[in-house]
Amino acid sequence: MSIKQLAIVCGTHGNEITGVYLMKKWQKNSQLITRDTFQTKLVQGNPKAYEVNRRYVDQDLNRQFSKASLANESLSGYEELRAKVLNQIIGPKSDPKTDFVIDLHTTTSNMGPTLLMPQRGRFYNFLAAYVKQQMPDVTVFCDEDHKHNDEHHMVCTMGKYGVVVEVGPVPQSVLRHDVFEQSEALTQVILDFVDLYNQDKLPELPASIEAFRFLKSLKLPLNEAGERIGMVHKNVQDKDFKQLNPGDPLFITFDGDVIPYDGDTTVYTAFVNEAAYYDNNLATSLMEKITLEIK
Amino acid sequence: MSIKQLAIVCGTHGNEITGVYLMKKWQKNSQLITRDTFQTKLVQGNPKAYEVNRRYVDQDLNRQFSKASLANESLSGYEELRAKVLNQIIGPKSDPKTDFVIDLHTTTSNMGPTLLMPQRGRFYNFLAAYVKQQMPDVTVFCDEDHKHNDEHHMVCTMGKYGVVVEVGPVPQSVLRHDVFEQSEALTQVILDFVDLYNQDKLPELPASIEAFRFLKSLKLPLNEAGERIGMVHKNVQDKDFKQLNPGDPLFITFDGDVIPYDGDTTVYTAFVNEAAYYDNNLATSLMEKITLEIK
Repeated sequence: MSIKQLAIVCGTHGNEITGVYLMKKWQKNSQLITRDTFQTKLVQGNPKAYEVNRRYVDQDLNRQFSKASLANESLSGYEELRAKVLNQIIGPKSDPKTDFVIDLHTTTSNMGPTLLMPQRGRFYNFLAAYVKQQMPDVTVFCDEDHKHNDEHHMVCTMGKYGVVVEVGPVPQSVLRHDVFEQSEALTQVILDFVDLYNQDKLPELPASIEAFRFLKSLKLPLNEAGERIGMVHKNVQDKDFKQLNPGDPLFITFDGDVIPYDGDTTVYTAFVNEAAYYDNNLATSLMEKITLEIK
Repeated sequence: MSIKQLAIVCGTHGNEITGVYLMKKWQKNSQLITRDTFQTKLVQGNPKAYEVNRRYVDQDLNRQFSKASLANESLSGYEELRAKVLNQIIGPKSDPKTDFVIDLHTTTSNMGPTLLMPQRGRFYNFLAAYVKQQMPDVTVFCDEDHKHNDEHHMVCTMGKYGVVVEVGPVPQSVLRHDVFEQSEALTQVILDFVDLYNQDKLPELPASIEAFRFLKSLKLPLNEAGERIGMVHKNVQDKDFKQLNPGDPLFITFDGDVIPYDGDTTVYTAFVNEAAYYDNNLATSLMEKITLEIK
């Protein structure tokens, strides 16, 4: 299957403003995001959240795209409504007019440029290998979650294919030159891939690449009343995609007691101390390092 | 004059949460912030802004403490009201019951631990020298603004003396272990200073120290409609208190054009790309490096 219709979604989270400024740039210079073999639609995910400089108005927009939520007409929160309109523009999820969705995000975590892939398959493997070949600094983050795509709740799962461009560290509501450049460069490489894929002109790709697969999230240390009693230890802060071994310092209580990682095996961290995850007291994601066979 | 009554204000900005968590720690262990020669009051600056996880509700609280604003009873914004209550608790500014106010802040800029002093004088010089002696990583930031204290609008100017503890980088709404530790350590050193000052037991201090004095703020590049057309150049990002020379890259437009610094002399930056200053399109503060004579 070739990719005929592509959508780039910017500003899905209102305070991740890098994507919104890239959108403004691309609106003025649309040739930057078009290629001969496909058409590109540029969509601002959550303009109202951007206006009020918040991640969202009522709910996280990037959690509203399961097939069940999209079908549930009794939901009336702002993002629950916005999701249905985006599904009209880009989807419908069950039989989408859009072949490929690129959703632009930033994180306060030190993740560098990251390609997040919510599904498995040959198309994704080739994409990841091409991206690693062209931009070796990119980390490939597999978040398939072992679900059927219908259950996935992310914006990018509206298309036949979809990925997240996730770049950090950058504080919420801030533009960083380096993060802006990395977000733009990674998007360009993905667009180049799609164009080459459509023409069956991909270069020779590596037989396998390094990637990371999501295992689970860890919560911050809480007391019985659910109040935080500590924070991410400085040995883990900024160490996204680095090893965390059993017994390594993981948290420190406000009183100064170190809480070590109590797992049985070496894992890797991601979304370390991400600002947006404080709502749910999430401290970090844990990942396994994998070898992705390119076939 | 000795310091008998001291106040520590935490959470003046609701999304600078480091101070709020230090406050919770100190509420449980009040001996950490008391010394034999003075009494300490612990005050949460803006509890409502903290609750909604915003810098402020209606206005920046740290701009409401000029004598004229405090006297103006027609002002009815949330922070305009809160300022008057804080002035009852800590002030009144004209004849304060509090001898010394320490106001805890964080910044998204890479400023490290910074001691910000809004007034001049022997007390401040001794404080700054003691802090540099005990914690050489601290930067001394003079922001006297050539005004009489009555015109100063910051929380810490309610006391006879007052300073800001300003530490970064940390995104808004995030706790970083290193920033938490630095904020706590700098506060402790200031409390130790006050105790020694009261007893006339200060150690021998250096004859002079390095410091930086605020000159002016620079705006982001804007078009005629007032819209941003660029961002802080990556050569300047994270380079707080580093040299900026005439002709050095300062901004980059979204289209990739470098805008150099067009000043005549070497200056130093601070609050580089601070998230909270986007409201006013401020890109950075410019500072001069000075030698503060300790006398």
